[in-house]
Amino acid sequence: MPRYKLTIEYAGYRFCGWQRQSNQPSVQQAIELAIKEMFNHNVIVEGAGRTDAGVHALGQVAHVDLPIDVPAYRLCDGLNHYLRGSGVVILHVEIVSSDFHARFSATKRAYEYRIVNRRASLALEENHAWHVIPPLDVSKMQAAAQHLVGHHDFTSFRTAHCQATSPIRTLERFEIYHTSIPMGVSIIAHIESRSFLHNQVRIMMGTIKLVGEGRFSVEDIPHFLQARNRQITGPTAPPQGLYLKKITY
Amino acid sequence: MPRYKLTIEYAGYRFCGWQRQSNQPSVQQAIELAIKEMFNHNVIVEGAGRTDAGVHALGQVAHVDLPIDVPAYRLCDGLNHYLRGSGVVILHVEIVSSDFHARFSATKRAYEYRIVNRRASLALEENHAWHVIPPLDVSKMQAAAQHLVGHHDFTSFRTAHCQATSPIRTLERFEIYHTSIPMGVSIIAHIESRSFLHNQVRIMMGTIKLVGEGRFSVEDIPHFLQARNRQITGPTAPPQGLYLKKITY
Repeated sequence: MPRYKLTIEYAGYRFCGWQRQSNQPSVQQAIELAIKEMFNHNVIVEGAGRTDAGVHALGQVAHVDLPIDVPAYRLCDGLNHYLRGSGVVILHVEIVSSDFHARFSATKRAYEYRIVNRRASLALEENHAWHVIPPLDVSKMQAAAQHLVGHHDFTSFRTAHCQATSPIRTLERFEIYHTSIPMGVSIIAHIESRSFLHNQVRIMMGTIKLVGEGRFSVEDIPHFLQARNRQITGPTAPPQGLYLKKITY
Repeated sequence: MPRYKLTIEYAGYRFCGWQRQSNQPSVQQAIELAIKEMFNHNVIVEGAGRTDAGVHALGQVAHVDLPIDVPAYRLCDGLNHYLRGSGVVILHVEIVSSDFHARFSATKRAYEYRIVNRRASLALEENHAWHVIPPLDVSKMQAAAQHLVGHHDFTSFRTAHCQATSPIRTLERFEIYHTSIPMGVSIIAHIESRSFLHNQVRIMMGTIKLVGEGRFSVEDIPHFLQARNRQITGPTAPPQGLYLKKITY
Protein backbone atom coordinates (compact mmCIF):
# COMPACT_ATOMS: atom_id res chain seq x y z
CA MET A 1 0.00 0.00 0.00
CA PRO A 2 2.47 2.71 -1.14
CA ARG A 3 1.87 6.32 -0.18
CA TYR A 4 2.15 9.01 -2.86
CA LYS A 5 2.77 12.74 -2.42
CA LEU A 6 1.05 14.89 -5.04
CA THR A 7 1.93 18.53 -5.84
CA ILE A 8 -1.10 20.24 -7.38
CA GLU A 9 -2.02 23.43 -9.26
CA TYR A 10 -5.65 24.51 -9.58
CA ALA A 11 -7.81 27.39 -10.74
CA GLY A 12 -9.83 28.16 -7.62
CA TYR A 13 -12.75 29.88 -9.34
CA ARG A 14 -13.84 26.53 -10.80
CA PHE A 15 -14.32 24.87 -7.41
CA CYS A 16 -16.18 25.19 -4.12
CA GLY A 17 -12.75 24.82 -2.49
CA TRP A 18 -10.40 21.97 -1.68
CA GLN A 19 -12.70 19.95 0.54
CA ARG A 20 -15.23 17.45 -0.76
CA GLN A 21 -18.87 18.60 -0.53
CA SER A 22 -21.99 16.68 -1.40
CA ASN A 23 -23.37 18.94 -4.11
CA GLN A 24 -20.55 21.11 -5.48
CA PRO A 25 -17.32 20.40 -7.38
CA SER A 26 -14.28 20.32 -5.11
CA VAL A 27 -10.62 19.79 -5.94
CA GLN A 28 -10.37 16.86 -3.55
CA GLN A 29 -13.28 15.11 -5.24
CA ALA A 30 -11.87 15.77 -8.73
CA ILE A 31 -8.63 14.01 -7.82
CA GLU A 32 -10.39 11.18 -6.00
CA LEU A 33 -12.60 10.60 -9.05
CA ALA A 34 -9.55 10.56 -11.35
CA ILE A 35 -7.97 7.88 -9.14
CA LYS A 36 -11.24 5.95 -9.14
CA GLU A 37 -11.29 6.04 -12.96
CA MET A 38 -7.66 4.97 -13.15
CA PHE A 39 -7.73 2.13 -10.59
CA ASN A 40 -11.43 1.45 -9.98
CA HIS A 41 -10.69 1.98 -6.31
CA ASN A 42 -12.11 4.43 -3.78
CA VAL A 43 -9.51 6.51 -1.94
CA ILE A 44 -9.34 9.55 0.28
CA VAL A 45 -6.89 12.23 -0.81
CA GLU A 46 -5.61 14.20 2.18
CA GLY A 47 -4.60 17.81 1.48
CA ALA A 48 -2.09 20.00 3.32
CA GLY A 49 -4.63 22.79 3.68
CA ARG A 50 -8.30 23.35 2.93
CA THR A 51 -8.43 26.28 0.53
CA ASP A 52 -11.78 28.09 0.33
CA ALA A 53 -13.93 28.51 -2.78
CA GLY A 54 -12.15 30.71 -5.32
CA VAL A 55 -8.68 30.37 -3.75
CA HIS A 56 -6.02 29.16 -6.20
CA ALA A 57 -3.09 26.81 -5.70
CA LEU A 58 0.29 26.95 -7.40
CA GLY A 59 1.64 24.16 -5.21
CA GLN A 60 -0.94 22.48 -2.98
CA VAL A 61 0.28 19.15 -1.59
CA ALA A 62 -1.75 16.03 -0.82
CA HIS A 63 -1.06 12.39 -0.03
CA VAL A 64 -2.91 9.25 -0.97
CA ASP A 65 -2.45 5.50 -0.40
CA LEU A 66 -2.92 3.28 -3.44
CA PRO A 67 -3.67 -0.47 -3.47
CA ILE A 68 -1.02 -1.18 -6.11
CA ASP A 69 2.52 -0.09 -6.79
CA VAL A 70 2.64 2.24 -9.81
CA PRO A 71 5.65 4.34 -10.88
CA ALA A 72 5.30 7.96 -9.75
CA TYR A 73 5.61 9.45 -13.26
CA ARG A 74 2.92 7.10 -14.56
CA LEU A 75 0.51 8.06 -11.78
CA CYS A 76 1.19 11.73 -12.59
CA ASP A 77 0.57 11.38 -16.33
CA GLY A 78 -2.44 9.14 -15.78
CA LEU A 79 -4.13 11.50 -13.34
CA ASN A 80 -3.50 14.45 -15.65
CA HIS A 81 -5.14 12.50 -18.46
CA TYR A 82 -8.32 12.02 -16.42
CA LEU A 83 -8.16 15.59 -15.04
CA ARG A 84 -7.78 17.21 -18.46
CA GLY A 85 -9.83 20.39 -18.77
CA SER A 86 -10.95 20.22 -15.14
CA GLY A 87 -8.89 23.15 -13.84
CA VAL A 88 -6.68 20.80 -11.77
CA VAL A 89 -3.19 19.74 -12.84
CA ILE A 90 -0.85 17.36 -10.98
CA LEU A 91 2.61 18.97 -11.15
CA HIS A 92 4.58 16.20 -9.49
CA VAL A 93 4.20 12.81 -7.83
CA GLU A 94 6.65 11.03 -5.58
CA ILE A 95 6.53 7.95 -3.38
CA VAL A 96 6.89 8.81 0.31
CA SER A 97 7.14 6.79 3.48
CA SER A 98 3.96 5.78 5.25
CA ASP A 99 4.55 8.26 8.08
CA PHE A 100 4.43 11.24 5.68
CA HIS A 101 1.23 13.22 6.18
CA ALA A 102 0.44 16.13 3.84
CA ARG A 103 -1.16 18.14 6.61
CA PHE A 104 0.65 17.17 9.81
CA SER A 105 4.17 16.82 8.39
CA ALA A 106 4.15 20.32 6.86
CA THR A 107 6.64 22.74 8.45
CA LYS A 108 5.81 25.85 6.42
CA ARG A 109 3.02 27.16 4.22
CA ALA A 110 3.64 29.99 1.74
CA TYR A 111 0.84 32.06 0.22
CA GLU A 112 0.80 34.89 -2.31
CA TYR A 113 -1.91 37.55 -2.48
CA ARG A 114 -2.33 39.60 -5.66
CA ILE A 115 -3.99 43.01 -5.93
CA VAL A 116 -4.50 45.07 -9.08
CA ASN A 117 -4.86 48.69 -7.95
CA ARG A 118 -6.45 50.81 -10.67
CA ARG A 119 -9.74 52.39 -11.64
CA ALA A 120 -10.65 50.16 -14.61
CA SER A 121 -11.88 46.62 -13.97
CA LEU A 122 -9.87 43.53 -14.99
CA ALA A 123 -10.09 42.06 -18.49
CA LEU A 124 -7.07 39.75 -18.29
CA GLU A 125 -6.88 38.92 -14.59
CA GLU A 126 -10.57 38.56 -13.78
CA ASN A 127 -10.83 35.87 -11.06
CA HIS A 128 -7.01 36.01 -10.66
CA ALA A 129 -6.55 39.09 -8.45
CA TRP A 130 -8.38 41.47 -6.11
CA HIS A 131 -9.38 44.60 -8.02
CA VAL A 132 -8.99 47.59 -5.68
CA ILE A 133 -9.98 51.04 -6.99
CA PRO A 134 -8.88 53.55 -4.28
CA PRO A 135 -5.15 54.30 -4.66
CA LEU A 136 -3.15 52.33 -2.08
CA ASP A 137 -0.06 53.59 -0.23
CA VAL A 138 2.14 50.50 -0.54
CA SER A 139 4.82 51.74 1.89
CA LYS A 140 2.19 52.05 4.62
CA MET A 141 0.94 48.55 3.80
CA GLN A 142 4.52 47.26 4.07
CA ALA A 143 4.94 48.89 7.48
CA ALA A 144 1.60 47.50 8.67
CA ALA A 145 2.55 44.01 7.50
CA GLN A 146 5.78 44.16 9.52
CA HIS A 147 3.74 44.63 12.72
CA LEU A 148 2.08 41.27 12.03
CA VAL A 149 5.32 39.32 11.58
CA GLY A 150 6.31 37.31 14.65
CA HIS A 151 4.67 35.36 17.47
CA HIS A 152 1.19 36.80 18.17
CA ASP A 153 -2.33 36.04 19.27
CA PHE A 154 -4.19 36.42 15.95
CA THR A 155 -7.73 36.29 17.40
CA SER A 156 -8.55 39.59 15.62
CA PHE A 157 -7.48 38.00 12.35
CA ARG A 158 -9.46 34.76 12.30
CA THR A 159 -13.04 34.01 11.39
CA ALA A 160 -15.55 33.06 14.07
CA HIS A 161 -15.75 29.63 12.39
CA CYS A 162 -12.08 28.91 13.01
CA GLN A 163 -11.71 25.57 14.80
CA ALA A 164 -8.07 25.87 15.84
CA THR A 165 -7.64 25.36 19.57
CA SER A 166 -5.03 28.11 19.89
CA PRO A 167 -5.12 31.54 18.19
CA ILE A 168 -1.35 31.86 18.63
CA ARG A 169 0.72 31.66 15.45
CA THR A 170 4.22 32.69 14.38
CA LEU A 171 4.07 34.66 11.12
CA GLU A 172 7.47 34.20 9.48
CA ARG A 173 7.14 36.49 6.48
CA PHE A 174 4.76 39.20 5.26
CA GLU A 175 6.42 41.18 2.48
CA ILE A 176 4.74 43.33 -0.11
CA TYR A 177 6.12 44.17 -3.56
CA HIS A 178 4.68 46.40 -6.23
CA THR A 179 5.30 47.08 -9.92
CA SER A 180 3.68 49.66 -12.13
CA ILE A 181 1.27 48.52 -14.83
CA PRO A 182 -0.60 50.67 -17.40
CA MET A 183 -2.71 53.15 -15.36
CA GLY A 184 -2.17 51.33 -12.10
CA VAL A 185 -0.08 49.25 -9.75
CA SER A 186 0.25 45.49 -9.35
CA ILE A 187 0.77 44.54 -5.69
CA ILE A 188 1.92 41.09 -4.52
CA ALA A 189 2.16 40.02 -0.88
CA HIS A 190 4.29 37.04 0.20
CA ILE A 191 3.09 35.45 3.43
CA GLU A 192 4.66 32.48 5.23
CA SER A 193 3.93 30.63 8.45
CA ARG A 194 4.09 27.09 9.79
CA SER A 195 0.30 27.17 9.82
CA PHE A 196 -2.51 29.71 9.54
CA LEU A 197 -5.84 30.24 11.27
CA HIS A 198 -9.02 30.05 9.18
CA ASN A 199 -9.17 33.07 6.84
CA GLN A 200 -6.11 34.59 8.55
CA VAL A 201 -4.37 35.61 5.31
CA ARG A 202 -7.52 37.14 3.83
CA ILE A 203 -8.39 39.07 7.01
CA MET A 204 -4.80 40.35 7.28
CA MET A 205 -4.96 41.45 3.62
CA GLY A 206 -8.38 43.07 4.06
CA THR A 207 -7.00 44.98 7.05
CA ILE A 208 -3.73 46.20 5.55
CA LYS A 209 -5.63 47.20 2.39
CA LEU A 210 -7.51 49.67 4.61
CA VAL A 211 -4.14 50.91 5.93
CA GLY A 212 -3.16 51.47 2.29
CA GLU A 213 -6.34 53.48 1.76
CA GLY A 214 -5.62 55.56 4.87
CA ARG A 215 -8.72 54.34 6.69
CA PHE A 216 -6.57 52.59 9.30
CA SER A 217 -3.14 53.79 10.43
CA VAL A 218 -0.01 51.67 10.57
CA GLU A 219 -0.07 52.05 14.36
CA ASP A 220 -3.56 50.56 14.57
CA ILE A 221 -2.13 47.11 13.83
CA PRO A 222 -0.47 46.46 17.24
CA HIS A 223 -3.72 47.58 18.90
CA PHE A 224 -5.72 45.19 16.73
CA LEU A 225 -3.47 42.33 17.86
CA GLN A 226 -3.83 43.29 21.54
CA ALA A 227 -7.61 43.74 21.34
CA ARG A 228 -8.27 40.11 20.33
CA ASN A 229 -11.50 41.16 18.62
CA ARG A 230 -12.47 40.25 15.05
CA GLN A 231 -15.02 43.10 15.00
CA ILE A 232 -12.41 45.85 14.75
CA THR A 233 -10.22 44.56 11.88
CA GLY A 234 -10.98 44.89 8.16
CA PRO A 235 -13.28 42.73 6.05
CA THR A 236 -12.05 39.39 4.69
CA ALA A 237 -10.29 40.03 1.37
CA PRO A 238 -11.86 38.16 -1.57
CA PRO A 239 -10.61 34.66 -2.45
CA GLN A 240 -9.61 35.31 -6.07
CA GLY A 241 -6.43 37.17 -5.03
CA LEU A 242 -5.14 34.30 -2.88
CA TYR A 243 -2.68 31.62 -4.09
CA LEU A 244 -1.44 28.68 -1.99
CA LYS A 245 2.11 28.74 -3.31
CA LYS A 246 4.27 26.19 -1.55
CA ILE A 247 4.20 23.68 1.31
CA THR A 248 7.52 22.83 2.92
CA TYR A 249 8.23 19.54 4.73
CA MET B 1 -15.28 66.82 -33.56
CA PRO B 2 -12.77 66.11 -30.76
CA ARG B 3 -10.34 63.21 -31.10
CA TYR B 4 -9.91 60.79 -28.18
CA LYS B 5 -6.99 58.49 -27.44
CA LEU B 6 -8.01 55.23 -25.74
CA THR B 7 -5.67 52.88 -23.85
CA ILE B 8 -7.13 49.38 -23.83
CA GLU B 9 -6.67 46.01 -22.12
CA TYR B 10 -8.24 42.87 -23.55
CA ALA B 11 -8.27 39.09 -23.15
CA GLY B 12 -7.28 37.93 -26.64
CA TYR B 13 -8.80 34.46 -26.41
CA ARG B 14 -12.28 35.96 -26.49
CA PHE B 15 -11.80 37.63 -29.89
CA CYS B 16 -10.90 36.90 -33.50
CA GLY B 17 -8.32 39.69 -33.10
CA TRP B 18 -8.33 43.47 -33.09
CA GLN B 19 -9.72 44.02 -36.57
CA ARG B 20 -13.44 44.04 -37.37
CA GLN B 21 -14.66 40.97 -39.25
CA SER B 22 -18.09 40.26 -40.62
CA ASN B 23 -18.92 37.12 -38.66
CA GLN B 24 -16.68 36.95 -35.57
CA PRO B 25 -16.30 39.09 -32.46
CA SER B 26 -13.39 41.55 -32.70
CA VAL B 27 -12.08 44.05 -30.17
CA GLN B 28 -12.51 46.94 -32.63
CA GLN B 29 -16.17 46.06 -33.14
CA ALA B 30 -16.79 45.69 -29.40
CA ILE B 31 -15.56 49.25 -28.79
CA GLU B 32 -17.37 50.66 -31.82
CA LEU B 33 -20.61 49.06 -30.61
CA ALA B 34 -20.12 50.50 -27.11
CA ILE B 35 -19.72 53.99 -28.65
CA LYS B 36 -22.80 53.39 -30.79
CA GLU B 37 -24.79 52.48 -27.67
CA MET B 38 -23.51 55.53 -25.81
CA PHE B 39 -23.95 58.18 -28.54
CA ASN B 40 -26.15 56.47 -31.15
CA HIS B 41 -23.46 57.32 -33.67
CA ASN B 42 -21.39 55.12 -35.99
CA VAL B 43 -17.64 55.58 -35.66
CA ILE B 44 -14.45 53.87 -36.75
CA VAL B 45 -11.96 53.17 -33.98
CA GLU B 46 -8.41 53.14 -35.35
CA GLY B 47 -5.94 50.90 -33.47
CA ALA B 48 -2.16 51.21 -33.19
CA GLY B 49 -1.68 47.61 -34.26
CA ARG B 50 -3.81 44.72 -35.46
CA THR B 51 -3.34 41.94 -32.97
CA ASP B 52 -4.23 38.44 -34.19
CA ALA B 53 -6.84 36.11 -32.70
CA GLY B 54 -5.80 35.04 -29.19
CA VAL B 55 -3.20 37.80 -28.71
CA HIS B 56 -3.74 39.85 -25.54
CA ALA B 57 -3.28 43.55 -24.89
CA LEU B 58 -2.15 45.20 -21.67
CA GLY B 59 -1.96 48.62 -23.33
CA GLN B 60 -3.31 48.72 -26.89
CA VAL B 61 -3.96 52.28 -28.09
CA ALA B 62 -6.66 53.53 -30.47
CA HIS B 63 -8.12 56.87 -31.50
CA VAL B 64 -11.67 57.86 -32.37
CA ASP B 65 -13.43 61.08 -33.39
CA LEU B 66 -16.70 61.79 -31.60
CA PRO B 67 -19.47 64.14 -32.76
CA ILE B 68 -19.82 65.75 -29.34
CA ASP B 69 -17.50 67.03 -26.68
CA VAL B 70 -17.56 64.71 -23.66
CA PRO B 71 -15.10 64.79 -20.73
CA ALA B 72 -12.43 62.09 -21.09
CA TYR B 73 -13.17 60.42 -17.73
CA ARG B 74 -16.87 60.23 -18.59
CA LEU B 75 -16.17 58.59 -21.93
CA CYS B 76 -13.91 56.08 -20.13
CA ASP B 77 -16.48 55.17 -17.48
CA GLY B 78 -19.31 55.09 -20.01
CA LEU B 79 -17.50 52.78 -22.40
CA ASN B 80 -16.52 50.48 -19.54
CA HIS B 81 -20.16 50.32 -18.52
CA TYR B 82 -21.20 49.12 -21.99
CA LEU B 83 -18.15 46.82 -22.29
CA ARG B 84 -18.75 45.12 -18.95
CA GLY B 85 -18.07 41.39 -19.11
CA SER B 86 -16.87 41.58 -22.73
CA GLY B 87 -13.18 40.93 -22.09
CA VAL B 88 -12.31 44.53 -23.09
CA VAL B 89 -11.54 47.30 -20.58
CA ILE B 90 -10.71 50.94 -21.35
CA LEU B 91 -7.83 51.85 -19.04
CA HIS B 92 -7.54 55.52 -19.92
CA VAL B 93 -9.00 58.17 -22.20
CA GLU B 94 -7.52 61.53 -23.13
CA ILE B 95 -8.35 64.25 -25.65
CA VAL B 96 -5.65 64.60 -28.30
CA SER B 97 -5.08 66.95 -31.21
CA SER B 98 -6.60 66.08 -34.58
CA ASP B 99 -3.20 65.19 -36.05
CA PHE B 100 -2.67 62.37 -33.51
CA HIS B 101 -2.98 58.99 -35.20
CA ALA B 102 -2.87 55.82 -33.09
CA ARG B 103 -1.04 53.89 -35.78
CA PHE B 104 1.08 56.44 -37.64
CA SER B 105 2.12 58.61 -34.68
CA ALA B 106 3.49 55.63 -32.70
CA THR B 107 7.27 55.72 -32.17
CA LYS B 108 7.65 52.43 -30.30
CA ARG B 109 5.72 49.23 -29.68
CA ALA B 110 6.51 46.96 -26.74
CA TYR B 111 5.41 43.33 -26.55
CA GLU B 112 5.80 40.66 -23.91
CA TYR B 113 5.83 36.92 -24.63
CA ARG B 114 5.18 34.43 -21.82
CA ILE B 115 6.22 30.77 -21.77
CA VAL B 116 5.55 28.24 -19.03
CA ASN B 117 8.21 25.54 -19.38
CA ARG B 118 7.20 22.38 -17.54
CA ARG B 119 5.78 18.94 -18.15
CA ALA B 120 2.30 19.42 -16.67
CA SER B 121 -0.30 21.42 -18.58
CA LEU B 122 -1.60 24.80 -17.34
CA ALA B 123 -4.52 25.01 -14.91
CA LEU B 124 -4.13 28.67 -13.96
CA GLU B 125 -2.57 30.21 -17.08
CA GLU B 126 -4.47 28.33 -19.76
CA ASN B 127 -4.86 30.77 -22.70
CA HIS B 128 -2.39 33.13 -20.98
CA ALA B 129 0.97 31.58 -21.88
CA TRP B 130 2.66 29.15 -24.27
CA HIS B 131 3.03 25.77 -22.60
CA VAL B 132 6.38 24.25 -23.67
CA ILE B 133 7.27 20.77 -22.40
CA PRO B 134 10.91 20.15 -23.51
CA PRO B 135 13.30 21.83 -21.05
CA LEU B 136 14.59 25.12 -22.51
CA ASP B 137 18.12 26.50 -22.12
CA VAL B 138 17.29 30.12 -21.35
CA SER B 139 20.88 31.39 -21.64
CA LYS B 140 21.02 30.11 -25.23
CA MET B 141 17.68 31.77 -25.98
CA GLN B 142 19.06 35.03 -24.55
CA ALA B 143 22.14 34.80 -26.78
CA ALA B 144 19.99 34.01 -29.83
CA ALA B 145 17.73 36.98 -29.10
CA GLN B 146 20.74 39.31 -29.01
CA HIS B 147 21.57 38.37 -32.61
CA LEU B 148 18.15 39.71 -33.65
CA VAL B 149 18.54 43.10 -31.95
CA GLY B 150 19.49 45.89 -34.38
CA HIS B 151 18.83 46.93 -37.97
CA HIS B 152 18.10 43.84 -40.09
CA ASP B 153 16.20 42.43 -43.03
CA PHE B 154 13.60 40.29 -41.22
CA THR B 155 12.29 38.46 -44.31
CA SER B 156 12.95 35.11 -42.60
CA PHE B 157 10.81 36.27 -39.68
CA ARG B 158 7.63 37.46 -41.36
CA THR B 159 4.62 35.57 -42.67
CA ALA B 160 4.03 35.27 -46.41
CA HIS B 161 0.87 37.37 -45.85
CA CYS B 162 2.85 40.36 -44.56
CA GLN B 163 1.91 43.47 -46.53
CA ALA B 164 4.74 45.76 -45.39
CA THR B 165 6.66 47.18 -48.36
CA SER B 166 10.02 46.81 -46.64
CA PRO B 167 11.21 43.83 -44.57
CA ILE B 168 13.81 46.05 -42.85
CA ARG B 169 13.19 46.82 -39.19
CA THR B 170 15.25 47.98 -36.23
CA LEU B 171 14.66 45.73 -33.24
CA GLU B 172 15.46 47.84 -30.18
CA ARG B 173 15.11 45.27 -27.40
CA PHE B 174 14.79 41.50 -27.09
CA GLU B 175 15.50 40.45 -23.51
CA ILE B 176 14.51 37.24 -21.82
CA TYR B 177 13.99 36.73 -18.09
CA HIS B 178 13.13 33.60 -16.19
CA THR B 179 11.97 32.68 -12.70
CA SER B 180 11.49 29.27 -11.20
CA ILE B 181 7.97 28.03 -10.52
CA PRO B 182 6.86 24.71 -8.96
CA MET B 183 8.31 21.95 -11.21
CA GLY B 184 9.22 24.35 -13.99
CA VAL B 185 10.34 27.73 -15.24
CA SER B 186 8.39 30.84 -16.19
CA ILE B 187 10.04 32.66 -19.11
CA ILE B 188 9.15 36.21 -20.19
CA ALA B 189 10.56 37.95 -23.27
CA HIS B 190 10.49 41.75 -23.64
CA ILE B 191 10.52 42.87 -27.27
CA GLU B 192 10.53 46.47 -28.54
CA SER B 193 10.66 48.10 -31.96
CA ARG B 194 9.24 51.15 -33.70
CA SER B 195 7.14 48.71 -35.73
CA PHE B 196 6.97 44.99 -36.46
CA LEU B 197 6.31 42.87 -39.54
CA HIS B 198 3.28 40.59 -39.57
CA ASN B 199 3.85 37.72 -37.08
CA GLN B 200 7.45 38.86 -36.54
CA VAL B 201 7.35 38.50 -32.75
CA ARG B 202 5.72 35.08 -32.89
CA ILE B 203 8.14 33.74 -35.55
CA MET B 204 11.13 35.09 -33.60
CA MET B 205 9.77 33.38 -30.45
CA GLY B 206 9.06 30.12 -32.30
CA THR B 207 12.64 30.19 -33.60
CA ILE B 208 14.47 30.99 -30.37
CA LYS B 209 12.34 28.37 -28.58
CA LEU B 210 14.01 25.82 -30.89
CA VAL B 211 17.39 27.29 -29.91
CA GLY B 212 16.36 26.70 -26.29
CA GLU B 213 15.51 23.08 -27.13
CA GLY B 214 18.89 22.62 -28.87
CA ARG B 215 17.32 21.99 -32.28
CA PHE B 216 18.84 25.23 -33.63
CA SER B 217 22.16 26.68 -32.46
CA VAL B 218 22.69 30.29 -31.35
CA GLU B 219 24.90 30.78 -34.42
CA ASP B 220 22.08 29.76 -36.76
CA ILE B 221 20.36 33.09 -36.14
CA PRO B 222 22.72 35.34 -38.18
CA HIS B 223 22.44 32.84 -41.04
CA PHE B 224 18.64 32.90 -40.82
CA LEU B 225 18.75 36.70 -41.14
CA GLN B 226 21.08 36.55 -44.15
CA ALA B 227 19.11 33.80 -45.91
CA ARG B 228 15.92 35.90 -46.23
CA ASN B 229 13.83 32.72 -46.28
CA ARG B 230 10.81 32.03 -44.06
CA GLN B 231 11.09 28.28 -44.78
CA ILE B 232 14.18 27.81 -42.60
CA THR B 233 13.11 29.52 -39.36
CA GLY B 234 10.91 28.01 -36.66
CA PRO B 235 7.11 27.74 -36.60
CA THR B 236 5.01 30.72 -35.53
CA ALA B 237 4.66 30.63 -31.73
CA PRO B 238 1.02 30.42 -30.56
CA PRO B 239 -0.92 33.63 -29.90
CA GLN B 240 -1.87 33.01 -26.27
CA GLY B 241 1.66 33.84 -25.04
CA LEU B 242 1.75 37.26 -26.72
CA TYR B 243 0.84 40.55 -24.98
CA LEU B 244 0.82 43.97 -26.66
CA LYS B 245 2.18 45.87 -23.68
CA LYS B 246 2.76 49.51 -24.51
CA ILE B 247 2.67 51.96 -27.42
CA THR B 248 4.90 55.02 -27.14
CA TYR B 249 4.19 58.32 -28.95
